[in-house]
Amino acid sequence: MKGRVVNFNPGPATLPLSVLEKAQKELTNYGGEGLSILEMSHRSKTFDSILNEAIEDIKKVMGITDNYTVLFLQGGATAQFAAVPLNLAQKGKPALYINTGSWSKKAISEAKKLSIEYQVIASSDQDNFNHIPRNFNIDNNASYLHITSNNTIFGTQWQSYPESKEVPLVADMSSDFYCRRFDSRLFGLIYAGAQKNVGPAGVTIVIIRNDLLDRSPENIPTILNYKTFAEKNSLYNTPNCFGIYIVSLVMKWILDTGGIDKVEKINQQKAKLLYDTIDSSNYYRPTAKSDSRSIMNITFRLPSEDLEKQFISEANAAGLVGLKGHRSVGGIRASIYNAMPLDGVEKLMDHMKKFQKSNG
Amino acid sequence: MKGRVVNFNPGPATLPLSVLEKAQKELTNYGGEGLSILEMSHRSKTFDSILNEAIEDIKKVMGITDNYTVLFLQGGATAQFAAVPLNLAQKGKPALYINTGSWSKKAISEAKKLSIEYQVIASSDQDNFNHIPRNFNIDNNASYLHITSNNTIFGTQWQSYPESKEVPLVADMSSDFYCRRFDSRLFGLIYAGAQKNVGPAGVTIVIIRNDLLDRSPENIPTILNYKTFAEKNSLYNTPNCFGIYIVSLVMKWILDTGGIDKVEKINQQKAKLLYDTIDSSNYYRPTAKSDSRSIMNITFRLPSEDLEKQFISEANAAGLVGLKGHRSVGGIRASIYNAMPLDGVEKLMDHMKKFQKSNG
Repeated sequence: MKGRVVNFNPGPATLPLSVLEKAQKELTNYGGEGLSILEMSHRSKTFDSILNEAIEDIKKVMGITDNYTVLFLQGGATAQFAAVPLNLAQKGKPALYINTGSWSKKAISEAKKLSIEYQVIASSDQDNFNHIPRNFNIDNNASYLHITSNNTIFGTQWQSYPESKEVPLVADMSSDFYCRRFDSRLFGLIYAGAQKNVGPAGVTIVIIRNDLLDRSPENIPTILNYKTFAEKNSLYNTPNCFGIYIVSLVMKWILDTGGIDKVEKINQQKAKLLYDTIDSSNYYRPTAKSDSRSIMNITFRLPSEDLEKQFISEANAAGLVGLKGHRSVGGIRASIYNAMPLDGVEKLMDHMKKFQKSNG
Repeated sequence: MKGRVVNFNPGPATLPLSVLEKAQKELTNYGGEGLSILEMSHRSKTFDSILNEAIEDIKKVMGITDNYTVLFLQGGATAQFAAVPLNLAQKGKPALYINTGSWSKKAISEAKKLSIEYQVIASSDQDNFNHIPRNFNIDNNASYLHITSNNTIFGTQWQSYPESKEVPLVADMSSDFYCRRFDSRLFGLIYAGAQKNVGPAGVTIVIIRNDLLDRSPENIPTILNYKTFAEKNSLYNTPNCFGIYIVSLVMKWILDTGGIDKVEKINQQKAKLLYDTIDSSNYYRPTAKSDSRSIMNITFRLPSEDLEKQFISEANAAGLVGLKGHRSVGGIRASIYNAMPLDGVEKLMDHMKKFQKSNG
């Protein structure tokens, strides 16, 4: 049995080893209580503490104020594509969307499917989503403006967020949630499947400004109703207890690492190392425009598809896994989420340099 | 740190220790691949094998034929309360419900909320749900008939299922899924939150007869669309991979135990031991009528609420946890799911006998 690999998968993705080891240690007997977290009532005092600590730490890490509510839901971004319009769309006030890639498109097509009045106010579709559009007007009469903060597939990321006093900004942060500091006051609602930066698959985090909870209509599926889950502190029904517990451990890990600013600094450093390697190579070709580059998913091409296959195959042999790009972009994608150690990025750089030397 | 307790919690609930130990062993490095199941791509060959084995074993354990599809979804029974009417209700054909307790009521109120045409054709509400109603007519023109196969709170369980050639039977089996053999051909759709008999919270299993997949309309939330998830073998979006893995281990455990008939035999034996203790005691009073008794949740009262508190407190001290009844029934509830060993039930019997001797 080999040791741990360097895991560049786009999600589910690498987690801090210390988090996994703690979960492993406690798996058959949590806190000496004689049962697993997997077997524990979601109504128990112990689980209530885990849940509330996770919520408090999510707030603490990013300095989120008390006029926001943190929810733990299920169903990933796919559920939120429906929940956002079902809860927040208002009659006669269009929902605005900016289309920056596959996930934006899914969010938009869900609004369409549910017969929500919507407008796509900007898109980088025609450039195969190689950048984040910056020219758009936000209609003050809109219900909300939806963006995808990071585009896993295309390796792009919003560098600064659109601002509006009137229109709540809704962000799908699934692939860059808590990778850097942000000002939560810019947002009406943030959602994120946990399985990239902060936990395992099966947990969705929603951070919603409290006044928006009043919009939730009565006649939508209860499982998608923000207000219902807010009123019950995410315990309207049985949540993914184990997933929440892992998120809680990851939040502690961020705090132990030195907080979000430290984590961001390391993330910036990791991304810079790879982009510098690409830019200085005269061999690797970046796919995202430089003003829109993601610090989470670094996408690039090699001179040919055969070389790309060889690059991935040799990387795998060297214990660097999950580097294959999405078929809509091709090439290589290195997903370097929070838990990717600097050392892992350095190993990839070494591989890139050696590969170029042998095949360039 | 004390050892493992005897866990009578109603859900999340006790799991086989061998399953937990296997998960624990593999938690940082699954199958020598160098990463955790929590970090593994849901599109990887390895996870695909886990998923398909889980599906095959679910079919194998109960002999489910190939005209049914097994789905892994999220959101628990709460999501299914909406998904069932949204997918299966047909215009001009009422949805029928039988009301046997709190969960039935939630299923019914969700149909109402979503403006589905429905009828409650039988209810044991007036008797505080102490039995399963047997007198009802099934309108052949109905879209489906929904039942709750086991009522965790009230300790009742369908002993035989209603039969109809015309109307698909839909069963919420959350609290007795795979506790006994059933003939899947009786059902149009079965759903179950996994967190009682077959896994952790955060995974929902749906078994649907293939012809019913054609009913799913286009304009419902994608996350609730059976057809979409069937077409993608439950991988339309990222599922709760870890939860599915645990379900897969539990299915292997059922097979290793000797299969569903053996598991049922042990379950019947455990329940009989407790019901015999209650019936012969002249002290403990059962709350469910004898023709409707659940083999999963055994509910009973003591002569006074003070004695009930004392009973629970002394049980806790003896390592028997999770015995407090739901507030709608009061008293004691011993949830003895598949993974509860006979030995755990015998310990509870001993506690009951000793307690009666000291306080009777």
